[in-house]
Amino acid sequence: VVTLLTDYGPGSEHVGALHLTIASLLPGADRIDLAHDLPPGEVRYAAVVLARLAAVLPGAVHLAVVDPGVGTPRRGAAVALRGGGALVGPDNGLLGPAARALGAVGAVALAVPPEAPSTFHGRDVFAPAAARIADGADPAALGEPYDPAEIVVPDLPEPAVAPGRIRAMALGTDRFGNLELLAAAGDLAAAGLADGERLTVRAAGGVHDALLGRTFADVAVGDLLVHLDSHGLLAVAVNGGSAAAVLAVAPGAPVTVERRA
Amino acid sequence: VVTLLTDYGPGSEHVGALHLTIASLLPGADRIDLAHDLPPGEVRYAAVVLARLAAVLPGAVHLAVVDPGVGTPRRGAAVALRGGGALVGPDNGLLGPAARALGAVGAVALAVPPEAPSTFHGRDVFAPAAARIADGADPAALGEPYDPAEIVVPDLPEPAVAPGRIRAMALGTDRFGNLELLAAAGDLAAAGLADGERLTVRAAGGVHDALLGRTFADVAVGDLLVHLDSHGLLAVAVNGGSAAAVLAVAPGAPVTVERRA
Amino acid sequence: VVTLLTDYGPGSEHVGALHLTIASLLPGADRIDLAHDLPPGEVRYAAVVLARLAAVLPGAVHLAVVDPGVGTPRRGAAVALRGGGALVGPDNGLLGPAARALGAVGAVALAVPPEAPSTFHGRDVFAPAAARIADGADPAALGEPYDPAEIVVPDLPEPAVAPGRIRAMALGTDRFGNLELLAAAGDLAAAGLADGERLTVRAAGGVHDALLGRTFADVAVGDLLVHLDSHGLLAVAVNGGSAAAVLAVAPGAPVTVERRA
Repeated sequence: VVTLLTDYGPGSEHVGALHLTIASLLPGADRIDLAHDLPPGEVRYAAVVLARLAAVLPGAVHLAVVDPGVGTPRRGAAVALRGGGALVGPDNGLLGPAARALGAVGAVALAVPPEAPSTFHGRDVFAPAAARIADGADPAALGEPYDPAEIVVPDLPEPAVAPGRIRAMALGTDRFGNLELLAAAGDLAAAGLADGERLTVRAAGGVHDALLGRTFADVAVGDLLVHLDSHGLLAVAVNGGSAAAVLAVAPGAPVTVERRA
Repeated sequence: VVTLLTDYGPGSEHVGALHLTIASLLPGADRIDLAHDLPPGEVRYAAVVLARLAAVLPGAVHLAVVDPGVGTPRRGAAVALRGGGALVGPDNGLLGPAARALGAVGAVALAVPPEAPSTFHGRDVFAPAAARIADGADPAALGEPYDPAEIVVPDLPEPAVAPGRIRAMALGTDRFGNLELLAAAGDLAAAGLADGERLTVRAAGGVHDALLGRTFADVAVGDLLVHLDSHGLLAVAVNGGSAAAVLAVAPGAPVTVERRA
Repeated sequence: VVTLLTDYGPGSEHVGALHLTIASLLPGADRIDLAHDLPPGEVRYAAVVLARLAAVLPGAVHLAVVDPGVGTPRRGAAVALRGGGALVGPDNGLLGPAARALGAVGAVALAVPPEAPSTFHGRDVFAPAAARIADGADPAALGEPYDPAEIVVPDLPEPAVAPGRIRAMALGTDRFGNLELLAAAGDLAAAGLADGERLTVRAAGGVHDALLGRTFADVAVGDLLVHLDSHGLLAVAVNGGSAAAVLAVAPGAPVTVERRA
């Protein structure tokens, strides 16, 4: 099994090229598309998505490419995982959370073929490495080993928590406009916030009333819901609408959720 | 074989999570993406699309999730089909047309794991059920049986047909801007409209001339064509353009097609 | 192996219908999506993309549908390739470059079932033919043979090259806004342009400074890079931005790259 996660865009020829490369080296491999609509170049969000999806199949080879620095000296890596699988992609922060969550037991800096163009390491470096590892190759045979402790971890700031108040980084949004924040159940508990509380949400797009609830129907259509999403992260949603549009925050920007007086 | 139809958006991590869940429970399953670009929460259009696509492989397990009421008491269902296949998804109207067309011989209300979040039954309820049924499990073992006659059928209004005139609901549109209406060949016959007739199309976006024809090239570039589309439904197209843009109708809105004087 | 390349849109039910048709005729086939986000009806760009992707798996059956003239008398074709594979799709220019690059050893005009609608030959003509050929059928059994020399070749104009200057057709763009031009390394050499030169780029969107380089990081964020892309074609990129947006050129329009005085 080889999984694929990129910011190439769904249905793009770049995704097709990864599939073809893997299929040509490893006919019959089960190739699973994890996500291709990730925001271009947003390494942090992609790193969080990779970590949670890879955890479902820890024994697979996970090919991930969000690589705004392709062609610069950043390492391309293959990371061997405790569970038998591997991560393959640029070592620019993308692999860090998954490597920590799944346990990195080895890392190699992948060699770049001298004739490869400087702009498509997904096709020319990472997909071939993923196919070879899925075919049983030892990652150590594909490049220079390095200490897995050196794998780059992205800057994912802890939320600032005070009584009745959480200030967290906006991570990203999905097609439904759900805005995911870098905070979790423990932060809600630490802030003393409980289900059913009336909240205020502050972001670039202004100040909005919200409810701390469990599902979209807990609020009226058009109203804001703050909830723990299906990945255990704090998220803002609008029932039948888009929190991303209402709050108008870019990935990386701060959002404050606090008890309404 | 497991097929997947959702409104999650192409290339989204939610689609990836369904694939991973199925692959983890049933390695080597052939997973076929039917559609993921369906308009968010538009149950009726998705129900029509599911029914026509599922008919191509009636023995497969069809996982379908367009679920604006996730987390409310609406049933999650597995429906056993006469041809040996099954439908799995929210029983909110989405499954009704396919269940009728393919013959429902049993239905169960799927149990929701108590620890599951309230917002992603696709991953936590429906994908596991689909994988287990594709693996040979009896749907009856996955929840409480109920009468298949209770499967919710969406409100798909019959067109109003008069001599020379059809008023029908706008169902949805594709990437090319073809606008599909809830009317068929029998309605054209009942209205006495025949190939080559000059028509008027009335919709929110105004009144437009059109031709009743068979293919896009029957009209000049930029002109409107009314035709029976590849699914046997009445549709409006613009040669080299977008009927959806010209007519500016939302799904569910009425469109009138009538003989031009 | 059957590959699929269309302009149907990623995640659309039209793509799903192709997969279902192939899976129903040839269960267990490895179906590889090459690209589905190609600009609607842009045959020339799709033809170039098909040729370079098909070359990775020359023994596969490549199903390609960008077919603005569906329902007109243009031929539908199955083309047998020297390497054992085949091309299947409308003979409207889409297949020409791949047929030339991979070597066409036979061609048949596919029969259209009399009951087939005039608007979805992808599902009703091309996908069934692709599945049958992948299943071992002789293409010659699927229609009337014709001379492969008659396969339509699209109008892909050679660039105009002068000392220090290349004028080339804009081919298309990807999600990152990279704009690909119909010129290659030989044209750069013929123009006497070398890595590191300062350039002027002229297009509909105005006149812009650029650098001839190798990778995005060769220029500052927001600046223009002219480079040979990963397919060996001349391309314009903006580091961290979109050259397609900056240059505002439609596919087919001219772009001039010349040495800055």
